[in-house]
Amino acid sequence: MVLTIYAPLFASSKRAVVTLVEKGVPFETVHVDLMKGEHRKPEYIAIQPFGKIPVLTDGDYKIFESRAIMRYVAEKYRSQGPDLLGKTIEERGQVEQWLDVEATSYHPPLLALTLNIVFAPLMGFPADEKVIKESEEKLGEVLDVYEAQLSKNEYLAGDFVSLADLAHLPFTEYLVNEIGKAHLIKDRKHVSAWWDKISSRPAWKEVCEKYALPVSALPV
Amino acid sequence: MVLTIYAPLFASSKRAVVTLVEKGVPFETVHVDLMKGEHRKPEYIAIQPFGKIPVLTDGDYKIFESRAIMRYVAEKYRSQGPDLLGKTIEERGQVEQWLDVEATSYHPPLLALTLNIVFAPLMGFPADEKVIKESEEKLGEVLDVYEAQLSKNEYLAGDFVSLADLAHLPFTEYLVNEIGKAHLIKDRKHVSAWWDKISSRPAWKEVCEKYALPVSALPV
Ligand SMILES: N[C@@H](CCC(=O)N[C@@H](CS)C(=O)NCC(=O)O)C(=O)O
Ligand SMILES: N[C@@H](CCC(=O)N[C@@H](CS)C(=O)NCC(=O)O)C(=O)O
Repeated sequence: MVLTIYAPLFASSKRAVVTLVEKGVPFETVHVDLMKGEHRKPEYIAIQPFGKIPVLTDGDYKIFESRAIMRYVAEKYRSQGPDLLGKTIEERGQVEQWLDVEATSYHPPLLALTLNIVFAPLMGFPADEKVIKESEEKLGEVLDVYEAQLSKNEYLAGDFVSLADLAHLPFTEYLVNEIGKAHLIKDRKHVSAWWDKISSRPAWKEVCEKYALPVSALPV
Repeated sequence: MVLTIYAPLFASSKRAVVTLVEKGVPFETVHVDLMKGEHRKPEYIAIQPFGKIPVLTDGDYKIFESRAIMRYVAEKYRSQGPDLLGKTIEERGQVEQWLDVEATSYHPPLLALTLNIVFAPLMGFPADEKVIKESEEKLGEVLDVYEAQLSKNEYLAGDFVSLADLAHLPFTEYLVNEIGKAHLIKDRKHVSAWWDKISSRPAWKEVCEKYALPVSALPV
């Protein structure tokens, strides 16, 4: 039964897509155009009741939430590709810890920067300069903790690459490119080395090439 | 080796505490007084670099992020008590999906209500009425999706109680009590039945009795 990912071009979906590519799992894609509001149509709400992307279908099985999809794929295809969940319960605990740090501390300020700097001009709403300033500060504080952690470990959860690292890829790619705040990464030695390492993985390069959102081509 | 939970009185920590109680795992507690800023002291930052609670230590092993602790405990003590992760990879996927919905869609507006309604008066900062109104609306929209899901399934992830349900307990307890917005739950038939069922579990009652934050005693 073939796996299908909805809306592969958007950043949240790319968490799921890069996991599939890392694991060497073939999949199909269905495009959902958020700019046109396709995610609010009844047909789509029937698939994802919150009207959000991504969704993965696997035959009759359906799962949403990008990080839940990552875990499902990493668990189901555990025996192939890199073990992205760690090898022991303790290692998995650290993967879960940093996945949750990403979801609850790293992502919210970075999403605010993405919306206000990348999407506001495209969608015609005004950027909130106060939110931009506060979000940059918050993200900087989170990255200070990452710097300390990555000075002691090659990857977030330890000396093995995991879902916790991969979950950071799509929006950090916005941060260093379209958002124009690469200095938040580059000014921190260990964060910078980590970013170079994870963003140059063949799986991520393939995702960026095959699933580029048209917006990436716009000048910033 | 005995397990130790830091700051059991606070709502985020209670996600971890209720999981330990459900699983019948003995543990010790260390109090951290957020009101006095103990979580910002160097001794505490050495344990939790973001200065947040909870933390679980298990001998030399240490893990933070409330939902990561839940998963670690449920996995390590899988063979005792209710299986809070589901029995198959597919069931676990649904548990992960709803855990992430809780973390990224349900919790943020509920936290905003908690801070503005319960903690603002205690800590002496002004409540933001606009944030209160918007958060109540957002939470209501999320609960509409829960209502549909719970009309088809006894619990969020299916017909078994799981971490996804338990993760909702601590802040929903604030919602129906200190926040004074029980109507958001009671006005939705299936959500209300689900809430009655999960909040009357012996483990949750024990947590509420043993680890009541003094604030719960204040008039609202
Ligand atoms: N927590 C969700 C968030 C998904 C999310 O917010 N996706 C955005 C696009 S990157 C979306 O669907 N936006 C449309 C909307 O919220 O209306 C996940 O990680 O899957
Ligand atoms: N995502 C974290 C959030 C923890 C959290 O924010 N805890 C609050 C108390 S309920 C806290 O530590 N606040 C202190 C602060 O952020 O300064 C988790 O679920 O463990």
